[in-house]
Parts: sequence; C-alpha cells; structure tokens
Amino acid sequence: MKLYEALAADIEASIRTGVLHAGDRLASVRHTSQSRGVSASTVFQAYYLLEARGLIRARERSGYYVSAGVRQVPPELDLTSQPKDESIAVDVSEQVFEILESSMTRDVVPFGSAFPSPLLFPLGRLGQAMASSAQSLDPWSTVDDLSPGNEALRRQIALRYLADGMPVHTDEIVITNGALEALNLCLSAVTRPGDSVVVESPTFYAALQALERMGLQAIEVPTHPREGIDLAALEHAISRHKPKACWLMTTFQNPLGSSMPEAKKKALVELLARHQLPLIEDDVYAELYFGDKRPAPAKAFDTQGLVMHCSSFSKCLAPGYRIGWAAPGRFVKSVARQKLTTTLSASAPAQRAMALYLERGGFDKHLRKLRQTLAAQQATFAEAVGHHFPSGTRATRPAGGYFLWVELPEGIDALKVHRHALSLGISVAPGPIFSASRAFTNCLRLNYGHTWDARSEQALASLGRLVSSL
Amino acid sequence: MKLYEALAADIEASIRTGVLHAGDRLASVRHTSQSRGVSASTVFQAYYLLEARGLIRARERSGYYVSAGVRQVPPELDLTSQPKDESIAVDVSEQVFEILESSMTRDVVPFGSAFPSPLLFPLGRLGQAMASSAQSLDPWSTVDDLSPGNEALRRQIALRYLADGMPVHTDEIVITNGALEALNLCLSAVTRPGDSVVVESPTFYAALQALERMGLQAIEVPTHPREGIDLAALEHAISRHKPKACWLMTTFQNPLGSSMPEAKKKALVELLARHQLPLIEDDVYAELYFGDKRPAPAKAFDTQGLVMHCSSFSKCLAPGYRIGWAAPGRFVKSVARQKLTTTLSASAPAQRAMALYLERGGFDKHLRKLRQTLAAQQATFAEAVGHHFPSGTRATRPAGGYFLWVELPEGIDALKVHRHALSLGISVAPGPIFSASRAFTNCLRLNYGHTWDARSEQALASLGRLVSSL
Repeated sequence: MKLYEALAADIEASIRTGVLHAGDRLASVRHTSQSRGVSASTVFQAYYLLEARGLIRARERSGYYVSAGVRQVPPELDLTSQPKDESIAVDVSEQVFEILESSMTRDVVPFGSAFPSPLLFPLGRLGQAMASSAQSLDPWSTVDDLSPGNEALRRQIALRYLADGMPVHTDEIVITNGALEALNLCLSAVTRPGDSVVVESPTFYAALQALERMGLQAIEVPTHPREGIDLAALEHAISRHKPKACWLMTTFQNPLGSSMPEAKKKALVELLARHQLPLIEDDVYAELYFGDKRPAPAKAFDTQGLVMHCSSFSKCLAPGYRIGWAAPGRFVKSVARQKLTTTLSASAPAQRAMALYLERGGFDKHLRKLRQTLAAQQATFAEAVGHHFPSGTRATRPAGGYFLWVELPEGIDALKVHRHALSLGISVAPGPIFSASRAFTNCLRLNYGHTWDARSEQALASLGRLVSSL
Repeated sequence: MKLYEALAADIEASIRTGVLHAGDRLASVRHTSQSRGVSASTVFQAYYLLEARGLIRARERSGYYVSAGVRQVPPELDLTSQPKDESIAVDVSEQVFEILESSMTRDVVPFGSAFPSPLLFPLGRLGQAMASSAQSLDPWSTVDDLSPGNEALRRQIALRYLADGMPVHTDEIVITNGALEALNLCLSAVTRPGDSVVVESPTFYAALQALERMGLQAIEVPTHPREGIDLAALEHAISRHKPKACWLMTTFQNPLGSSMPEAKKKALVELLARHQLPLIEDDVYAELYFGDKRPAPAKAFDTQGLVMHCSSFSKCLAPGYRIGWAAPGRFVKSVARQKLTTTLSASAPAQRAMALYLERGGFDKHLRKLRQTLAAQQATFAEAVGHHFPSGTRATRPAGGYFLWVELPEGIDALKVHRHALSLGISVAPGPIFSASRAFTNCLRLNYGHTWDARSEQALASLGRLVSSL
C-alpha cells in the first residue's frame, strides 16, 4: 500500500466509523502534511482518491468536506466475553441442527451460512485437475493413498508450511475428509469420555457438537473479539478444571473473527507446554487474511509437538472436494490410526487432483483475488449493517475470513430474529448456538462471503427492520 | 446352469475334495443315468466336459477314471465357533494395527490384504465419469451434496434396492465415505460408551476396533462357517447381556465367508424385533456372489426400521473413491446428523461421478465378469492350499467374496506364521485379530482376490512349507 493510499484508508475509516460526520471539514492539506509527516502532494493524492470514491468533496476556496450519505459501519465490539468459570456437559446439538437444517436450501439468503459463495472458487481449473487425476489413476493408488494419504499431496502441503517458515514435514501430515474430520480425529486421539476440553466463548458450534457426541465437557474461556482467548483466564481454567485439551481458533476465529497477535500465540504455546496440554488448532481461515501476510498459527511456535494443526482447502480453494489435513505433532500415529478405523482414507482421485492443482501453480494467484473480494465484501456488508440496523448495534471488524459477529441492542432475542428472518427467506446464525451455556442471546453471526447484490441489500434492510421491530 | 454342467460340477467337487481319488473309476454312464434320473446323453456331456478340463480320462473299453495330479481342496471347515458367553472390553486395536501396517506395501504378496486387486475394476470408465462430473460441477452442488448426500446418487442406489425387491427409498439413504464410515456412524447412533454390542465369532477386526474406540463391550456369539451366527446362542446372549445393538455380516461374512440362508435371516430379523434391538448389517460383499442371484440381506425382511443396512462401491466397483452408504431405517435422521458433525459430507465430484457411472449403465456387466473372475480364483486358490498345506488343514468354501478362512492343524500359531511369512515377503491375516478374546490362534484369512500367477503359486508354496515346518 502506498503512502497516499494508507492515508486515504485512515481517513475513510474515520468517516465510516462516525469519527467524522457528513459536512465536517477535513484538516487542511498543509496541516495534514505536517501532522502526518508526509509531503503535500501525498495528502493531495489521498484527498483526490477519497473524492473519487465519493467520500469527500471539495468546496471552492474552502477545503474538503465529508459527503452526505456516506454509510457508517457499526461501532466496534470491544468487550471480552464473560462465561461462567465451570466445566459443563454439552447439550446443544439438537438446537444447532434444527437451526442449520432449516436454512440449508438455495432459496434462503445465506447470511447464516457457514460457507462462502461457491462461485468464488476456481472450479474449472480444479475440474481439469480432477479429470486428469481420474483418467490417469494408477489402480494401486487406491492402496497407496490410504491414510496417512497421498504422498504428493502431503508434500505440497509441507511445501506450503515451509514457505511460511514452519517445520512441518510430509510424515507429520494426515489427509482427512476436510478439516472437520481432522479436528474430530485429533480430539478423539487425546481425550476419553468424561474429560474436559477448553473452548473459546463464543466458539464454533461444531466444536460443541463434537464434545457432546464424544461425552466431553466444555470449559468456556473469556475471549476478546479482536485478540482472542484471555490467557490469564485460560491459565486459571487449566489449574481449576484440569482439561485434557484445548480446541481453539487462533486466527479469524469463527464466529468472532478474532486473531491472537503473534506474541500472544507464542505465550499460549508456552503456557500449554508448561501444562503439557495438547492444543487442537483449527486454522481453516488463515489464508483469507486482508493484511500483507498470512498470520502465523500457534503451531509455528510449537517445539514439543503438542500443537495439532488442522486445516483444509474447503474454505479457500475447493469446497465440496472434502480434502483437509491434520499436522498433529507427537500424536500423528494415533491420528492416522483413528482415520484408518473410521473412514479409512480420503477419496483417492480427489487427493490426487488437489496435488495436481497445487503442482500446476495458480493457488496463490487465486488466493490474492479471493482475499480482495472478501475484503471488499466485508466493507460493503459492514456499511449496510451500519445503515440498516438500529443504533446500539455493535460489530466486529475482522482482518480476514467472511464472518461479522454482530451484537444487537440488549434485550433483542437472536433466536426470535432467526425464526422471523427465516419466514422472510433469510438465514442468520443466532448467538446461542456458539456457546454451551447458550449465552450471546442478542448476537448474530452474519456471512458476507456471498456476492453483494440488490437481493442482499434488500434482505439486510428487511433484517434491520425486523431487528428494530423486536 | 444346464443339467450336464450341474452333474459335472458335482463330480468335480467329489474329485477336488478327495471323495474320489486319482485312478478311481467313475460309475458307468448307464448307472449314473439311472441314479441321477437324467438321460445317458446328459451323462456323456458331463463326462466329456470333465475330460476336457483334465479331471478324468477315458480308458478304452473300460470307462472313465480320475486323472492323476488333480489338486484337491482342503476338507471343509464345518464346526460352529465356541466363544465364551461373556461381554468383554475390547483391547485388540494396537495388535491389529501392527499387523495391518506391517503388510501395507506393494512389495508384499497380499494374502493378508482386505482389498481385492485394484486391477479388477473399471477405473477407465469411472475416470471418464469423474472427468465429466468434475468439469461440469455446478458450484452449488458443494452445498446441495452435503449429507445426506447427492440426490441423483441416492436415487441410483434406491433403484438397485428396488431391483432387488427391497423397499428402501431415496430419503432413507445417507451417502458416506465408504461402508466403514456408514458402520461407524450407525454404531455411534445407537450406543453410548459402556454399552455391549453383539458380534460374530470370528468377526471383522474393524468392528472390534470401532467398539474399542467408542468404549463399547463385545459379546462374541457362536457362528457357523457356512450358515452364519447361531440364533439360539444369539437369543441367549441377548437375554443375558442386554446388548444395545448387533453388528453382523449376514452374507459372505469377513473372515468366514458364511452366508445366512434367507429363512435364517428372516428369523434373525424377527428375533431382533422382539427385543427391539437394532441390527447394523455390514453387506459389502453381497454383490460378489457366485450363484445365480444376489443373496437378500436381513434388511429385506425388516418391517420395523430396525435394520441399518450398510454397503459401498469399494469392493465391487470403485475402490479408493470412498463412496458408501447407510440405509439406517428409523435411525436415518440421527445417522445423517452424525455424518454432518464428523466429516460433513462425501466428496461432491466423487458422488456425482458415481451417480453418472450408474446412470450410464454397465455396472451389472462389470459385476458379472468380476464374479466369474473371483469364482475361478477361489477354485485355483483353494486347490493350491489343498496342494501346499499340510494335512489336517481345513478351509471354508464361500459362495462369494474373496476370502478363504483356513484352519491349520492344531497347535500351529497363526501369529508366528504371520511373522515368518512377512520375513518372506508374504502377508497373511492371522486368526486372533478377528476376535476380542484373541481366539482362532491356528487360523488364517487368505485373500484370493488378486490375479493368480507364478509369484502367487510360489508364495503359497512357501507359506505351505512354513506352516508344515512349525
């Protein structure tokens, strides 16, 4: 990003978040040049850019003013959650299913969906790779590609770890049917029924469903919407409840979008190492960053093999192919065996197609485009929420992924919003499904990973009216 | 089968099993015609056929004699197993893994393999279907094909049930990553840790591994090598141990090859209905029958939705594609939900490829050829066992599938055979891995689903010498 672009972005943020209002006069070019320590021409370029975007306009001999009608985004959600300090049995799966199943149809506006738009992915090039893979399939690959999985694909994944400066070797990687299976296998490898597991508050509902299915208890730990889990609270929970594992999303957490800063991830890994506690790290959104580089996972700081890193291609490349993986550190043998006795292996032609696509190149180019698209859609979506939702609404501003976590004014029942919205043909993901204690009763997770068009705008307007009416 | 072919088959069986020895004179044409109630010309045709096969030869003016050098198959194993009447914790998985992993390489002669030769399958035509599927993939299929799975594929499977006279509807079918996942999901849907589950004795080791992983106990019930589980013993075990489910292979059981006669399957279903006990029916080998029609599964007699029928395309069409299914009767919703929270769905392009292949036709033609191949390989393999193994060896004679269950002379340690054989580059599946109580210490499961050639003959000869030496 060039200097004038960075300056323009800062000013735009001030406008979008309501620091500057319509009609406010911007500081003079000279003043800004001095206060920012940039040249006058840089300031001019920034102002021209903002003017071109319709955010400010010049009045002759008077300076620049914020335009009328610029949409504001909601104020940022900034408070750490406060779950009860307890280890509790999980019983939410039935409700989660009812809510998810009710919105699993193409007709519904998918603000509640867990998936980004399938139109965002290079299905054509993937299809070519799949065709090549299937038509030249070595019959013995059906044996060779059994768990831990196709070696060429594991090597490609190891190369990506290497490019990110992480020492994960081909032999540590187990190919799975998507990250969800990787997470489940890891959880199963390090727990027994009755054990407790640390999760964030709020957390991804599939983690809760896994705990419930496997007879595990949940310890919900306070989590900040920008910086992730609270380490002091985590250490307290470990001492008090003796969990057997942590299941965390350290980057672009679902639903919060929070990302732990690198130093915090490092501290997390050290803390867990002191307690010899395995970390199941769900890292499926990390490639969808809007900044200048991929945020390092906690895995990058692990020296003891305690971090079980799980990811997939489903959110960033090939939804529906069901190819994910675990890099489970010292637990790799156990995870590979779990895989062999539950689903045996991932589809051989799909594994080979993915390897082929990665070998042919183009993944990073696709990712750059995908990130730009999602970043732009977040801006548009957040402004629409700011415009259509009642005041008192707050929202997160994730630096990646495709979810906004929206806190509605107190007293508004998110489950009621879900039911009414569904009758209008709109899905939302209501807060209570993200918590074993069914908290977050006035929160929604909204998906901005679908193309923004007139239908979305209308749907979000309807949703805003609905929320205001409750 | 024509009359003369049936007669020839009977006589061949008498020769192969040692009822008739080399040099023995066959009954005269006239005598056989009278005793069998067939025409003299039918007997002549049968004798000509046997002569053409080298099994008998004519001596001028004297009649037909059994040729020298005809290989005999081992005597048939005919005794029902006698496991202890108990419900026991399972702890075999580690040993099973060690044994399976040691032989998972292409270099080893795969008598211990669980898979038939990948060369037996129409991978070319499947590859074409996969290419078409992947290149025309509707982006939204990644959402539409989530569990319960692709509708076109579920319809094709339902059509096959219909053709077999079974009322299983599209809505009852859940697509899975192979039958193994289907079985695991069904087990998980009807049990809780600590419950007991009925299995055959011997049983498929993956069933034992599933019980162990899920903290379930095994009740091993006496099973006959030809006719399957003993119903009286089953009823006794149900009354005594109160299991929560049965996991059985009613057709071409792995490892015995036993198939319950239809009347017995019907009685089984009625028995379980009286106790309202779910049956997880593993039916992956049924399409590999050597007779004139597909044996009906227990599912065919189920009127209460208690039978959870599990199968796949992995053993009969598309190994490595990992497409299987469950038709779990009244438990369908629960199984589909288990699938959603563990692996989400099967690979979308693989599901569609399978649907396309089935729609295009040719599956039944492929199956006919596959059955003939396997039947011929069984005959050759059984003769080679009869020829190379020491006397006192007995073996099953399954009417389908690709496994022989071989009982070695008493006192021979199958685990020792496994270890020594592996050092010779030959894998076997030793009896103890098929039992929670590690019984069947002198039994082996041998796979005849690979092309028979000089290497196989040599390997089986080595194995025979090894067994004789122990």
